[in-house]
Amino acid sequence: MTVQLAGTDAGMVGDDRPWQPLGLDELPLRDSLRGMSPYGAPQLDVAVRLNTNENPHPPSIGLVDALGKAATLAATEANRYPDRDAEALRADLAYYLTPDAGFGVHAAQVWAANGSNEILQQLCQAFGGPGRVAVGFEPSYSMHRLIALATATDWAGEQRADDFTLTPEQVTAAIETHRPALVFLCSPNNPTGTALPPEVVTAACTAMAAVGSGIVVVDEAYAEFRRAGVPSALTLLPANPRLVVTRTMSKAFALAGARVGYLAAHPAVVDALQLVRLPYHLSSFTQAVARTALAHADELLGTVEAVKAQRDRIVRELPGLGLALTPSDANFVYFGRFADEQDVWRRLLDRGVLVRDVGPDGWLRVTAGLPGEIDAFLAALSQVLAGARTDESGLVTLASR
Amino acid sequence: MTVQLAGTDAGMVGDDRPWQPLGLDELPLRDSLRGMSPYGAPQLDVAVRLNTNENPHPPSIGLVDALGKAATLAATEANRYPDRDAEALRADLAYYLTPDAGFGVHAAQVWAANGSNEILQQLCQAFGGPGRVAVGFEPSYSMHRLIALATATDWAGEQRADDFTLTPEQVTAAIETHRPALVFLCSPNNPTGTALPPEVVTAACTAMAAVGSGIVVVDEAYAEFRRAGVPSALTLLPANPRLVVTRTMSKAFALAGARVGYLAAHPAVVDALQLVRLPYHLSSFTQAVARTALAHADELLGTVEAVKAQRDRIVRELPGLGLALTPSDANFVYFGRFADEQDVWRRLLDRGVLVRDVGPDGWLRVTAGLPGEIDAFLAALSQVLAGARTDESGLVTLASR
Repeated sequence: MTVQLAGTDAGMVGDDRPWQPLGLDELPLRDSLRGMSPYGAPQLDVAVRLNTNENPHPPSIGLVDALGKAATLAATEANRYPDRDAEALRADLAYYLTPDAGFGVHAAQVWAANGSNEILQQLCQAFGGPGRVAVGFEPSYSMHRLIALATATDWAGEQRADDFTLTPEQVTAAIETHRPALVFLCSPNNPTGTALPPEVVTAACTAMAAVGSGIVVVDEAYAEFRRAGVPSALTLLPANPRLVVTRTMSKAFALAGARVGYLAAHPAVVDALQLVRLPYHLSSFTQAVARTALAHADELLGTVEAVKAQRDRIVRELPGLGLALTPSDANFVYFGRFADEQDVWRRLLDRGVLVRDVGPDGWLRVTAGLPGEIDAFLAALSQVLAGARTDESGLVTLASR
Repeated sequence: MTVQLAGTDAGMVGDDRPWQPLGLDELPLRDSLRGMSPYGAPQLDVAVRLNTNENPHPPSIGLVDALGKAATLAATEANRYPDRDAEALRADLAYYLTPDAGFGVHAAQVWAANGSNEILQQLCQAFGGPGRVAVGFEPSYSMHRLIALATATDWAGEQRADDFTLTPEQVTAAIETHRPALVFLCSPNNPTGTALPPEVVTAACTAMAAVGSGIVVVDEAYAEFRRAGVPSALTLLPANPRLVVTRTMSKAFALAGARVGYLAAHPAVVDALQLVRLPYHLSSFTQAVARTALAHADELLGTVEAVKAQRDRIVRELPGLGLALTPSDANFVYFGRFADEQDVWRRLLDRGVLVRDVGPDGWLRVTAGLPGEIDAFLAALSQVLAGARTDESGLVTLASR
């Protein structure tokens, strides 16, 4: 996807805009950023958008009304700075996490920010930085690597096995090799969808404690969609004081528009983040909207079962189309393996269905949308696959157009 | 001000909280952060809060209603990610800036984030970082230094003259000495209140261009309060492609609770920030609230004259109390010089008036609040100063209690 950058538009020279031509290479951009493109899925106006793992269920009329009233109340004091420590919101989040954690989570163990990306950035700012290494296991959420880069933290990307699983042995070996300040795990993993067994997280914590005092981050953005019987890494917090579990309200809570991410960790980790957080980082509107959504958790989490049903439907249907996939504990399915997944992506888009090509080669990711959206996705995919050939390794090659 | 950190509370060991004792020194905190306290004014429940330069005028009932309606509309699509590029908001901000700029500002020249702190952080992430230097002239807004620190940018703090002014020669000399990637200017300067003459900004741009390709940042958080005849640095943008002017909606727009900061610069600078911004950093609620406030700019900016009247009243009254102050183009006044300004701060607080002690020694900062708040401030200050002695250098020593 080519991103058009306004300032470097070659067509601009000589036109009537009120600025001189100036390229990125004429700015003192950090060397590590040169040649990069901005992160982000194409925001295209397509009928069926299954590319950013949004929850397809909008808030109910009652919840919309409650959110609006909460924002109205916040507006009456909009001239004042928000609660810098977001204490009420953190208490609400702690209460919400308690059943998954299996112990009484305390507000002092919770921190919130503008999306879990900002949480991850604060972790890298506090514990990473120049001369320090963060390890991740790829393919995974690519913002882990990009945030490390933006905070001048060295990145060591280890490759997952061909089936995208991760073992305690592999994690331990990587930690012993790199002796990192931070390890990023992702459970369920984005984009591959599978949750980590708790023994992998425990192995990471044990290995990190053996080589130093580094932090293990488990990104649980999609935790609420995991299959029955899979425990959250929250349960491991009491035994592992340098374990951090990040979450978001963007997915299960259907609140991507409000940008609320959070973590649970030892209170000392929260203290450390206070040293790098921007003061008043979380607006009073954000705090009010998030608290209102948490007060309606039952309604919002009610959508999770509907989303899981569509996910499981995709998981059931794709093998019949000759495709491979990974077990999904998330609200998306990772499928392949295509000789040219960009061609598949394009042909689906031609049929009004937008999925995501996040790499590696051969694989695509589709979000579990509404039933009608999944109807459209499966129908379009069937059409795209008509006449496709599958070789002995399982690689699918589309018929020529 | 001692900050109580939950995780390092010595009283916690042995109590029944579900975590093990763990100190900050047992975490892999970056060396540059060790020993720091979190930034921020004490959030105390006091009758007269004149410590954080908030606009004391809450939104009107009509505006509260409009903000609530805008948030309600955003809530209907809260399950979807916001516009990642905030294009409509940036167009509105460009329109707003145009009169001050004296040319037609284009949306491609504007970028917005969660408070101007996030804008400043993005600038440091893109153009600062390890091995690069940022220069500031202190006393100034201390977040410039702290954000440089958090982004691993070296900080060179040059001292202002005793009267807190800054000359083209001083700025030029500092740039020639440090050859920085970034220079932070602040106009009107926080906490000293005085706007910079345009020739200082121009000298900075000229000197920076002579030694490299670095960025000159003019922090104009308080620009709308400047006295008549003082031009904004926005007017200098067309001639200086590496000049960045940052603004906020927290002050003149009375929208501190919503956390909206922005900049105007060459579009190539905006392109560069896209490489480090967190995707979807600005919530759909924030974008909706900010756009609504901009649509009510006349009403909100109407408070500016009332605030300036109180500021000018403080400026008129303080010399009669035997105090010195600096010319103020902002919504606050910097006054002194006290032998022990912490004692003055405490005695004002005892009388229900909270001002700010941001350093350097001898000076305090008071926000221009509502008329009744300034009545209370001036009355309390008169009481505190009763019996005070002033030595030949102008240093004020309070009478013993």
